[in-house]
Amino acid sequence: MAIARKIKASISKSSMIRKMFEEGAILKKKYGADKVYDFSLGNPNIEPPEEFKNELISLAARIIPMKHGYAPNAGFVETRQAIAEKINKTQNLKLAADNVIMSCGAAGALNVIFKSLLDPGDEVIVLTPYFVEYPFYIDNYRGVVKFVKTNDDFSLNIEAIAAAINDNTKAVLINSPNNPTGKVYNQQSINDLAKLLTEKGKELNKTIYLISDEPYVEIVYDGVTVPSILKAYKNAIVAYSYSKTLSLPGERIGYIAVNPEIDNCADLISALILCTRILGYVHAPALMQRIVAKLQEAAVDVKVYQKKRDMLCEGLSSAGYKFEKPQGAFYLFVQSPIPDDVEFVKTLLKKNILVVPGSGFGGPGYFRIAYCVDDVTIINSMEGFAEAINDTR
Amino acid sequence: MAIARKIKASISKSSMIRKMFEEGAILKKKYGADKVYDFSLGNPNIEPPEEFKNELISLAARIIPMKHGYAPNAGFVETRQAIAEKINKTQNLKLAADNVIMSCGAAGALNVIFKSLLDPGDEVIVLTPYFVEYPFYIDNYRGVVKFVKTNDDFSLNIEAIAAAINDNTKAVLINSPNNPTGKVYNQQSINDLAKLLTEKGKELNKTIYLISDEPYVEIVYDGVTVPSILKAYKNAIVAYSYSKTLSLPGERIGYIAVNPEIDNCADLISALILCTRILGYVHAPALMQRIVAKLQEAAVDVKVYQKKRDMLCEGLSSAGYKFEKPQGAFYLFVQSPIPDDVEFVKTLLKKNILVVPGSGFGGPGYFRIAYCVDDVTIINSMEGFAEAINDTR
Repeated sequence: MAIARKIKASISKSSMIRKMFEEGAILKKKYGADKVYDFSLGNPNIEPPEEFKNELISLAARIIPMKHGYAPNAGFVETRQAIAEKINKTQNLKLAADNVIMSCGAAGALNVIFKSLLDPGDEVIVLTPYFVEYPFYIDNYRGVVKFVKTNDDFSLNIEAIAAAINDNTKAVLINSPNNPTGKVYNQQSINDLAKLLTEKGKELNKTIYLISDEPYVEIVYDGVTVPSILKAYKNAIVAYSYSKTLSLPGERIGYIAVNPEIDNCADLISALILCTRILGYVHAPALMQRIVAKLQEAAVDVKVYQKKRDMLCEGLSSAGYKFEKPQGAFYLFVQSPIPDDVEFVKTLLKKNILVVPGSGFGGPGYFRIAYCVDDVTIINSMEGFAEAINDTR
Repeated sequence: MAIARKIKASISKSSMIRKMFEEGAILKKKYGADKVYDFSLGNPNIEPPEEFKNELISLAARIIPMKHGYAPNAGFVETRQAIAEKINKTQNLKLAADNVIMSCGAAGALNVIFKSLLDPGDEVIVLTPYFVEYPFYIDNYRGVVKFVKTNDDFSLNIEAIAAAINDNTKAVLINSPNNPTGKVYNQQSINDLAKLLTEKGKELNKTIYLISDEPYVEIVYDGVTVPSILKAYKNAIVAYSYSKTLSLPGERIGYIAVNPEIDNCADLISALILCTRILGYVHAPALMQRIVAKLQEAAVDVKVYQKKRDMLCEGLSSAGYKFEKPQGAFYLFVQSPIPDDVEFVKTLLKKNILVVPGSGFGGPGYFRIAYCVDDVTIINSMEGFAEAINDTR
């Protein structure tokens, strides 16, 4: 065998999202891009806010010694300070710059966190449906994924989580607003989860970390607020990305934030910095670090996504589809009209509609629509959606 | 134990380079930055070329749909195409865009390569002295490092490499121009190595990869040329970074290039793309991908480094230090006047001179000077260097 055996095995069952993306490219070539309704990828169609553009233009022209030189592995102190201040102000906490480590997006953050925490065989509880990459990120460091179902409305099932915790449990991973469901866990459920992890930690005499993947934390609708995880539980670690808030997923910039009261704080911070270095990230891209330091108040206009959500929900509801209306992120997780979601996704494909089967997210019987697309894509897809559900009747 | 045991162990013996960097920060605060001669970090002091600055300014202002959106995991086709063409032109090869995968610098490239290739227990031959991060990168994927000494002039010891190859050998890792020695392996030695790996591969009935870490490939002096590794050996993989060529190590942009004739080429390419994704890199930063696509002919003025090298070599030689004159990169690997290099580095520290002990690179009895610093730092440090060697007499 030339390449690694495990990687060889993974290639064959590669991401369903990317597969759809490739199918889409073929269809677009055949029928023209405007005749294909691509809801497969969470690649935001909204432009970054003006503040971002202006800051990039200004920074590009400015003379700064060593502007593109190496940064500290943890990131520039000024950037980390700005983020700590923002968190402190909005969540009423007391983070220092040291409690923030810059990362290459949330994906980079999660890899650094898992490498820092996991010994071989350590279990991480992942709630289904889940973001497709989580099992890879955990397996990278020989952790073991323990799947726990959420309730029918995708809310936290505290009893099920409790039942899954054992002596090997190192962490619980949550993602709210959720990809693929758009669910936001409410304050009560976060409090219940924090209470459970505190009690279980005492009972088992160990630290159970709560890792919160929060790239969509600022993409929320209808006045919903996302509870502060760092506030709710001392052994919490947040993985954040600017990909969605500033609409720049291509630039790979995010951070890890740690509750200053966390167990073995100094060790953990050192571990996160070391792992950022030795995993080959070295540090988050310097230019983007300098920019986000200045843009703590900037964000895309969430109303634009809310309008898309509403259009989509109304259209699909009229056509007879069933779903939980999402409170955040830009995904709709729709019940497949037939039990076999992969089969139904193929039916949609015949209407030139690209979505991802729920099976890819550990949520069979559903499909995911990423609605971070042009309004016209949503509008023009409605006929095909209606035909597809009618075809099943 | 809260954090991973292996990481806990690594923290305590963390990078000597970074330790020096931190010592330096303390000294600079105490004595003023201009009174401290910091040769510890390979953070280039040369500004990026004008072409880079202009391209960044122009790109910042330009309107491009989805400018900061997700890229394909392998990188933008236009960027990969431009790089393939550059390699084909300069090395007389026939790479397609598909043979190039964009990475977060050479550090990211090496991590992706090792994750793609290594099964647990696979051995990677690393030549000493070596870049300090290699053992981490290999261990990340449960590979086993097998150290092999270079000759006294830091050239390849083919017999020693031959003796180290066995049934577990997956790859040989080379770095030319070398960090920390500045050595460039000549064409004859690369040919000999290629011949050895071909023969051993046949004998053992397996592929032995040659991985070439080449961030300094364009930083060479006195008309020295660096042999094409892809040309010399079909099972070769190159890890490249723009960090030094364009003086932008903070922006984390580089690539992996694969010989199109490599064994199981399609599998390997798929593995590299998958590992870029699942390691959490997702893809190299989009903005920098767009820029380097346009800058295949740009480079910093190497004569500036050559002048620094000559000043340093003359000064140290006059003071009585012994070393191999470097042919490339911006490091000088100097014999410690006393056997204990860590002790001598402390002596230099008393003169406010920061260098890194050779022990940190698997080269005890030496110390490394990174001379990518202001001329005045080199000039003003000479007195301290002379005093330090005299103190040992």
